[in-house]
Amino acid sequence: MQESDVKLRLGVMLGSLRKASFNAALGRSLATYAPSNTRIDLLPSIGMLPHYNQDILDEGIPEALAQLAEAIRAVDGVIIVSPEYNWSMPGVLKNALDWLSRLNPGPLQDKPVTLFTSSPGLLGGARAHAPIRNVLLALDCKVLVKPEVQISQIKAKLSADTPTITDAATADFVTQRLAAFSDFARRG
Amino acid sequence: MQESDVKLRLGVMLGSLRKASFNAALGRSLATYAPSNTRIDLLPSIGMLPHYNQDILDEGIPEALAQLAEAIRAVDGVIIVSPEYNWSMPGVLKNALDWLSRLNPGPLQDKPVTLFTSSPGLLGGARAHAPIRNVLLALDCKVLVKPEVQISQIKAKLSADTPTITDAATADFVTQRLAAFSDFARRG
Amino acid sequence: MQESDVKLRLGVMLGSLRKASFNAALGRSLATYAPSNTRIDLLPSIGMLPHYNQDILDEGIPEALAQLAEAIRAVDGVIIVSPEYNWSMPGVLKNALDWLSRLNPGPLQDKPVTLFTSSPGLLGGARAHAPIRNVLLALDCKVLVKPEVQISQIKAKLSADTPTITDAATADFVTQRLAAFSDFARRG
Amino acid sequence: MQESDVKLRLGVMLGSLRKASFNAALGRSLATYAPSNTRIDLLPSIGMLPHYNQDILDEGIPEALAQLAEAIRAVDGVIIVSPEYNWSMPGVLKNALDWLSRLNPGPLQDKPVTLFTSSPGLLGGARAHAPIRNVLLALDCKVLVKPEVQISQIKAKLSADTPTITDAATADFVTQRLAAFSDFARRG
Repeated sequence: MQESDVKLRLGVMLGSLRKASFNAALGRSLATYAPSNTRIDLLPSIGMLPHYNQDILDEGIPEALAQLAEAIRAVDGVIIVSPEYNWSMPGVLKNALDWLSRLNPGPLQDKPVTLFTSSPGLLGGARAHAPIRNVLLALDCKVLVKPEVQISQIKAKLSADTPTITDAATADFVTQRLAAFSDFARRG
Repeated sequence: MQESDVKLRLGVMLGSLRKASFNAALGRSLATYAPSNTRIDLLPSIGMLPHYNQDILDEGIPEALAQLAEAIRAVDGVIIVSPEYNWSMPGVLKNALDWLSRLNPGPLQDKPVTLFTSSPGLLGGARAHAPIRNVLLALDCKVLVKPEVQISQIKAKLSADTPTITDAATADFVTQRLAAFSDFARRG
Repeated sequence: MQESDVKLRLGVMLGSLRKASFNAALGRSLATYAPSNTRIDLLPSIGMLPHYNQDILDEGIPEALAQLAEAIRAVDGVIIVSPEYNWSMPGVLKNALDWLSRLNPGPLQDKPVTLFTSSPGLLGGARAHAPIRNVLLALDCKVLVKPEVQISQIKAKLSADTPTITDAATADFVTQRLAAFSDFARRG
Repeated sequence: MQESDVKLRLGVMLGSLRKASFNAALGRSLATYAPSNTRIDLLPSIGMLPHYNQDILDEGIPEALAQLAEAIRAVDGVIIVSPEYNWSMPGVLKNALDWLSRLNPGPLQDKPVTLFTSSPGLLGGARAHAPIRNVLLALDCKVLVKPEVQISQIKAKLSADTPTITDAATADFVTQRLAAFSDFARRG
């Protein structure tokens, strides 16, 4: 049996809570472009977590955190799909990472992680990569760094309903990056 | 009448929600070290805000956001007092900045802002300054940048109950930085 | 006499040493798009400076540094025009800033500064802004932050020989940003 | 024969050119604290490189670059020992990384790299880590990220003449981090 015969599971963490979010649609579309023997599912919404507060943790791990942690532990790698907010990461995404950093062992520790960003504009969320990556490294994630995945003008490249990537070059790029991340996650 | 005769109002935004937070105690202590003719009050807790979600905003400005925005508009400058989480800003602080960035006009636009960090360790939150400052600039704040205020070993320098800064050198430094920020805020 | 009647002088610091550099051509083209009563000249090349080494400084200010410092002191504002190298600033640009930071008073202290980047690719040097800006703030520059000027696909937008910006939208944007920076520099 | 029986070679890249640099002394001291079967040597000085300029490269690889590249290819891992300049990396260090990034294959590609910073002050160069790390990732280095090695008050902890680390806790920390980096480099 070859290594690639083993089923790989990847989880998608969405950085935007908005229902009609293009990044959320992009995240939901990823299963379509998964390599063979790789299953891609959404992780539980980070919007279910409270604001990080050690007082809450002192009383016990919140249910939403326990569920998110368990879902992360059950996958072989995590794909964060997020918008850029104010030249950096969404606060709600950082909040999820803050919570996850306080569990021991950390669900993201040594976990393969990569980042996709997209935006309606020309930069595709480029400015969010360095700030988010820096936090992922603080959490001891194994980060697949390059090439950075930044999808510009996402509105014109996505059918949000399906959801499907309608721009062929983008679909190819995403397919290729998912294959690369699957390989990366298989190597663990 | 001299410029310094005009009463100045500064607001403190706390980056930590924990009740016994050393940064919160530091923030509450600042009024004690305010220059003459300067009043320093806590702003409403950023913990009252929901996670940023444009769907919520589309239905109307959340009450907690309206209150925070009004409180910020009522002061002449904002002092953010925050811990460093995972080499960056607390998610809950970024969440507040994300919300504030979506109001028009933005309550923090052209507002004088400065940042104090502290930690029990040796770096005093030093790694949070560049990431937070970058976001403040994205929000068009007028940032008093230097010197960065990073208070190390805060546990040994603060009486959290009072709250008072018990370390004389730290109290002097804070007094001097508050005076500098008052001048900066007066110049607008 | 109105404020705008006073002649303003701006200096351009080039981040690339390559003769046929598109950023250098962009920098040389800026005089064409200057607002009335504003003169834009190239500053001396930062390539004339040695690598920063305090031993050199201990023996005296290098001639190339003295000339650069004098040229900066003679202008009312500095426009840095630079490529992005490896997700950050060119080393030679940082080297120039390191040298300038060691003079007292610093030629860039309280000096209005802004940053233009361009690239043949889609991001226009976007990732260089936060790192360069952070260093400029460390040097106490007055930075005109927003909007970030990032010109993508520069090869198709520039006639390097003239040099002229051949893309009308880009020429308009540059004209507008130069006007904004002139206003910023006039306010000092 | 066990893996640890194989001799490992590590190279030290110094970020400061000053003769009496504390970081240079720290870098030279590292051989003393090397784990068994690990040899640590200085790499050629990055001060020998010209300022990066593609015109130079177009005429051929400069001799100093060829020597540095060869020395890097000959070692199993690189330890960068550097001061922080203006909240970021020394320009001369970035210049070396810019040159190395233009060779194909890149000498630092897939090379294990870690970063030690030190300073006479309290932060030990902490603010240089994120900026330098980001560039190392752009160059496809395998970066040993944590814990960040930041040695504060270096003047009191080093006998620059020997050179030896005179502070026992610092010597222990350095010994431990070199052992961890050797393990990291052995795993390749």
